[in-house]
Amino acid sequence: MLISCVAYEQGRKVADIPSEDISEYVRRPDCFVWVALFEPTREELDEMAEEFGLHELAVDDARSGHQRPKIEEYGDSLFAVLQPVEKVKGEDGRDDLLVGEVDVFVGQNYVLSVRHRTQHGFGAVRTRAEREPELLKYGAGFVFYALTDNVVDRYFPVLDDLETELETIEDQIFVRGSARTNIERLYELKRRLMVLKHAVDPLMEGTGKLYGGRVPQICHGMGEYFRDVYDHLYRIHTTIEGIRDMVTTAIQVNLGMISLSESEVTKRLAAWGALITVPTLIAGIYGMNFKSMPELELTFGYPMALGVMLVIDLLLYWRFRAVGWV
Amino acid sequence: MLISCVAYEQGRKVADIPSEDISEYVRRPDCFVWVALFEPTREELDEMAEEFGLHELAVDDARSGHQRPKIEEYGDSLFAVLQPVEKVKGEDGRDDLLVGEVDVFVGQNYVLSVRHRTQHGFGAVRTRAEREPELLKYGAGFVFYALTDNVVDRYFPVLDDLETELETIEDQIFVRGSARTNIERLYELKRRLMVLKHAVDPLMEGTGKLYGGRVPQICHGMGEYFRDVYDHLYRIHTTIEGIRDMVTTAIQVNLGMISLSESEVTKRLAAWGALITVPTLIAGIYGMNFKSMPELELTFGYPMALGVMLVIDLLLYWRFRAVGWV
Amino acid sequence: MLISCVAYEQGRKVADIPSEDISEYVRRPDCFVWVALFEPTREELDEMAEEFGLHELAVDDARSGHQRPKIEEYGDSLFAVLQPVEKVKGEDGRDDLLVGEVDVFVGQNYVLSVRHRTQHGFGAVRTRAEREPELLKYGAGFVFYALTDNVVDRYFPVLDDLETELETIEDQIFVRGSARTNIERLYELKRRLMVLKHAVDPLMEGTGKLYGGRVPQICHGMGEYFRDVYDHLYRIHTTIEGIRDMVTTAIQVNLGMISLSESEVTKRLAAWGALITVPTLIAGIYGMNFKSMPELELTFGYPMALGVMLVIDLLLYWRFRAVGWV
Amino acid sequence: MLISCVAYEQGRKVADIPSEDISEYVRRPDCFVWVALFEPTREELDEMAEEFGLHELAVDDARSGHQRPKIEEYGDSLFAVLQPVEKVKGEDGRDDLLVGEVDVFVGQNYVLSVRHRTQHGFGAVRTRAEREPELLKYGAGFVFYALTDNVVDRYFPVLDDLETELETIEDQIFVRGSARTNIERLYELKRRLMVLKHAVDPLMEGTGKLYGGRVPQICHGMGEYFRDVYDHLYRIHTTIEGIRDMVTTAIQVNLGMISLSESEVTKRLAAWGALITVPTLIAGIYGMNFKSMPELELTFGYPMALGVMLVIDLLLYWRFRAVGWV
Amino acid sequence: MLISCVAYEQGRKVADIPSEDISEYVRRPDCFVWVALFEPTREELDEMAEEFGLHELAVDDARSGHQRPKIEEYGDSLFAVLQPVEKVKGEDGRDDLLVGEVDVFVGQNYVLSVRHRTQHGFGAVRTRAEREPELLKYGAGFVFYALTDNVVDRYFPVLDDLETELETIEDQIFVRGSARTNIERLYELKRRLMVLKHAVDPLMEGTGKLYGGRVPQICHGMGEYFRDVYDHLYRIHTTIEGIRDMVTTAIQVNLGMISLSESEVTKRLAAWGALITVPTLIAGIYGMNFKSMPELELTFGYPMALGVMLVIDLLLYWRFRAVGWV
Repeated sequence: MLISCVAYEQGRKVADIPSEDISEYVRRPDCFVWVALFEPTREELDEMAEEFGLHELAVDDARSGHQRPKIEEYGDSLFAVLQPVEKVKGEDGRDDLLVGEVDVFVGQNYVLSVRHRTQHGFGAVRTRAEREPELLKYGAGFVFYALTDNVVDRYFPVLDDLETELETIEDQIFVRGSARTNIERLYELKRRLMVLKHAVDPLMEGTGKLYGGRVPQICHGMGEYFRDVYDHLYRIHTTIEGIRDMVTTAIQVNLGMISLSESEVTKRLAAWGALITVPTLIAGIYGMNFKSMPELELTFGYPMALGVMLVIDLLLYWRFRAVGWV
Repeated sequence: MLISCVAYEQGRKVADIPSEDISEYVRRPDCFVWVALFEPTREELDEMAEEFGLHELAVDDARSGHQRPKIEEYGDSLFAVLQPVEKVKGEDGRDDLLVGEVDVFVGQNYVLSVRHRTQHGFGAVRTRAEREPELLKYGAGFVFYALTDNVVDRYFPVLDDLETELETIEDQIFVRGSARTNIERLYELKRRLMVLKHAVDPLMEGTGKLYGGRVPQICHGMGEYFRDVYDHLYRIHTTIEGIRDMVTTAIQVNLGMISLSESEVTKRLAAWGALITVPTLIAGIYGMNFKSMPELELTFGYPMALGVMLVIDLLLYWRFRAVGWV
Repeated sequence: MLISCVAYEQGRKVADIPSEDISEYVRRPDCFVWVALFEPTREELDEMAEEFGLHELAVDDARSGHQRPKIEEYGDSLFAVLQPVEKVKGEDGRDDLLVGEVDVFVGQNYVLSVRHRTQHGFGAVRTRAEREPELLKYGAGFVFYALTDNVVDRYFPVLDDLETELETIEDQIFVRGSARTNIERLYELKRRLMVLKHAVDPLMEGTGKLYGGRVPQICHGMGEYFRDVYDHLYRIHTTIEGIRDMVTTAIQVNLGMISLSESEVTKRLAAWGALITVPTLIAGIYGMNFKSMPELELTFGYPMALGVMLVIDLLLYWRFRAVGWV
Repeated sequence: MLISCVAYEQGRKVADIPSEDISEYVRRPDCFVWVALFEPTREELDEMAEEFGLHELAVDDARSGHQRPKIEEYGDSLFAVLQPVEKVKGEDGRDDLLVGEVDVFVGQNYVLSVRHRTQHGFGAVRTRAEREPELLKYGAGFVFYALTDNVVDRYFPVLDDLETELETIEDQIFVRGSARTNIERLYELKRRLMVLKHAVDPLMEGTGKLYGGRVPQICHGMGEYFRDVYDHLYRIHTTIEGIRDMVTTAIQVNLGMISLSESEVTKRLAAWGALITVPTLIAGIYGMNFKSMPELELTFGYPMALGVMLVIDLLLYWRFRAVGWV
Repeated sequence: MLISCVAYEQGRKVADIPSEDISEYVRRPDCFVWVALFEPTREELDEMAEEFGLHELAVDDARSGHQRPKIEEYGDSLFAVLQPVEKVKGEDGRDDLLVGEVDVFVGQNYVLSVRHRTQHGFGAVRTRAEREPELLKYGAGFVFYALTDNVVDRYFPVLDDLETELETIEDQIFVRGSARTNIERLYELKRRLMVLKHAVDPLMEGTGKLYGGRVPQICHGMGEYFRDVYDHLYRIHTTIEGIRDMVTTAIQVNLGMISLSESEVTKRLAAWGALITVPTLIAGIYGMNFKSMPELELTFGYPMALGVMLVIDLLLYWRFRAVGWV
């Protein structure tokens, strides 16, 4: 589906143009065309490939739409795969992470973005870019930066959620009785971290090639902007690694807490068990059928026996309490 | 066994040729020969080595047929070892992974593929290549790409199976009573991951040398194609690493679930134990032989005793239920 | 909030100047201006950006104030983010680590430091620098070094606390009954280590680019000083890694101790259980109602039975003691 | 002990020569001398050092004989330390790994091998080399290759044993009751892996410098041969890493199996315990001494009581069986 | 404290000189001065700094005396921090590791060593160096090598102790009842490994820069000697890593052994418990007060009951023995 197709000149919007005029505008020197597609049909993509002269392998990648994030050069043009990550409600009503895909073809005079799966478009990016003609003058390189920056900025709320989740679990981890919930949440947290990590890390690698050293022609003069994007990705990366490390430790610690609490339950049970079995022994003794058992003859034998039981239990209880077993 | 031996000129099939004519066709400038062997005898391989002038060490490797994947230069020619991985039924009826081997000798004017163990041949690659004469014109380099690409493409369904297996286990991991099955499946999953990893990682390393920087003569002009292969391998690699990481975590988590469920069983048993031992104590008390035990004389002493037992058990049961022990 | 704004010439203080005169002093060749802000308003920062001609992206970073530590070049100037780490009392009265932020803009003729969150200012750095005019003559590069060095020096007491904490835990780890406390402290120690690590590691990376090889113009002649800073950071880094490694081991060892102590408790309980159940069996036997049980008729049958119980318990006790179960 | 000392010319054996003539043959241009020592005395080694003009530090290393594998250049000559690994019977009759040492000095016109600890000599290498004069013509570099190749080839059967051992353990790991044996075997396997790894990894590093890039003069023209050796070492290396990874996982899995089986034993015991304690309670009830207990008067009271016990136990048993506890 | 201060010329000792004459001797071309200090006062170090013209930062490092090992260039001179590690008796009479520090300043014409904490001096190094004038002629570079080599050689006995300790623990790890001791020893071993590792690893890094590639002027011609030192450090490094790996595995294995032995104890206790509770049930049955219990009337009822108890216990015992529970 074609979302929009606009020609720009000197940083200013010229016109919404029909897709068959693209190749004409692309040929003009100071002009560039910015096209946005959403889950295009085979025909739409083929048309674009022809209008812009895109490389077959890149188009194949965009068509199949299940790529890893990357930024590749095809001659003078760039092909980038970005993966926005969004929080959505899963089928079971719980939060889940949705990994979208945005394929961006960037040439000297054009930017073509192909969006898959994610509902969240780039209208805001276009609006903001059109408000800053002095930057938009940089052309395709700037638009590419703006798109990438937008995708990266969307990672931060997702990451904040994961950090908050870790802190919530940390508050629970030494609370008795929460081990099962903790372990499920830690596993789920780890799983989401991996999802985010798989979106971020390859992109960091790709962005790192867009500043310093040899830089693709299209990104000339944008070095500090792409370094800023890289820097954000790097920050996300180290935060992810930090959370991962703490999750691993938390799982171990949780295992320790489970063992500890089992150990405590065992002791408590044993203590209460003793409070029952000791009087049982006494009752057993006075249940023996010996002819001559003087206590049995006593008038207060029975209450005395009960008293002994009680006293022994009280002593045991006091003792167990002292060592923290009950 | 010789599967096929075909000469091509300008990207078009010239003829099926007998193996003794190979050296003649190889000498023609615009011509190249594409030979496919399957588990060749010593003699067949020696003949090929002579016809193509293959390096002794490479032929030794192909003969012994248990190499790690690699791509090596011998002067102007390349020697590659690829390992297709296929899902097969093991002897015990369960799925297993079969690691095949394809040794490819590539020279300016020839491609020789030697297939071991795997049943799945490269007929489809040949057919498709012959349908695209404009690409086949690139000669041996393109055929090499097509073979590699085909082997790599076959990894994806295997990888998908492993991902699905992980997801199936994840659905089971917090279900009580499935710990033993989970642990067996996780170990088996890990084992298969390693099999796939050992096929993929060295090939990724080898493919990485076929684009950018200094590239073997044979692969000139194919850079973007080999980068595409590398990119697929990289994607497989990171997916494998991701699954591995989750498997490790899942094994730990499973261990935690085992401990937890043991802890719960202990508590449950203790609770039920208490429901038996407490009445036993009461029965023991009324089984004592004291002369003077007033309750024993009561008409309703017996039902009262039973009633006390019942009431205490009900109270205990209610209490245990409240703390979730029964 | 503007803390101070001073112009220096030839390493000596010229005057406290109002912020609107900055651009005038910056233009003088042998002069440089050193400004310190604390949590500035939007307007204050915008004014500085104009006076010094700061890069928009760097100013954005300083404004949002939640960056990772870094040292970046913007043309001839540097932008550094430092994270001082301080020990503070948390809300619950326990020690916690506060991560501050100091953004430093360094140009040929100016240094601007923007402090966030941390209470601990750089007055001492300024005082010391003014006492050493021969070093202050180096200008902005030296001031930048002095600030960085000061931030790094503040890591050492924090690190010492963490080392002391590890040693304290190590003394406790093989003491019975301290497992729960140990595990909580180990987790908390790990968490703090990560906080410090995230402040130190990226700065080490940044500082490493300020000596040897190609060095930013501003830092020329200061190589040995920045290497010294790097060296301190490296020392902190390896110490952190060492503590981390030991923490991981300590958590594992602690888990082992928990299992061991559970095992010992189980044995002890079982031993005491046996001391009760064996006499209970004997009592049960003499509680049987057989017509002919000769012992029951004996005058000393009852004390004999009690004696037998006692002797068996003593034997058992002696035996259990020998194997260390009681 | 001098094993052999032979002069070669143009790839053909000239003569067995006495050690004092070595320096004379070494001076001839097309000639080279190949000497083999086994655990030489101080004097033998000193003599060789003088005849060949060996570097003092290398000779010191060869004398002390406990080096790590390495390949070092001393001016025009090479000094290599290889560690053959052999399976031997240990003192307790069990298989163990013996790490030998072979120090090789290689110069333009000589090869000196000094063997320590290992019984397995290099006679076969010499014999094969003498059968291939066209290769032996390459001189000292070829002999060095042949020795290295021979040592590396001997790693394969050792590695195969370790792989087989892992597979054997894997077959046992989910079998009940084998946990203790498994854990001992896994530890032993890990220990042997480390022994092999310490022999292989440094040699891989050393061999990697003998092909491609700048290569020592002696090894010119042998690049493809040394790459082949490197390739074998790399294969061994990755296999070792793979086994190591699986051993770690297997130890974890084994720990899980132990916990699981403990959990199952606990349940089983508890179930059987219930089958005893429940009838005990009933017996206790009918052992009470209440005056009025109607059941006691019944003619069939006793068999009825026994019947009730039996029925309850059967019900319990059926119930436990259903949940898999007995 | 000044230990010694000697001038050398052409590799031969000229004289013990007073420290105020140092600067004079240092100026002579073929002469060099070798000074050894032990825990110098502030004044002694300041004097040396002046006489030799040492860099302020290096002197600061030597003064504070708690550096990480390193080798740094200051212009033409080198500053090295070495950490000898010695086995000492700790306060509690147990072996402990003492980490000393030796700061070495090396210039074209001087070597100054500043020793901290360690009692073990370098008198032997000086004596040996003076015996080898042909090597001492190399001047300061050789002395620096000799000092470094000496420090590194002292690591080996410490490392051997750690290896022996690991082997001792390995012999104990599968022995029942040693788990607690093992776990304490493993932790202590790990702690010492880290101490040694922190002394060795940074020095290895530093030494690696003293041979091959660009080498400091002072170390010219000593490349093979420093490579030898590097090689020793590398060997120590890999051995440490190997032990560390095995320690980690051993801790895991030990944990498995603890679980296993707990599992065995549980079974054993349960078995003995059954041998008591089953006869208790029988006794309970014959303690019931039913009017009509034919067995009670039998003359041999009582011994029969006892017999039944015994037979059942024997059968159970035989059964438990068969499955290895008692």
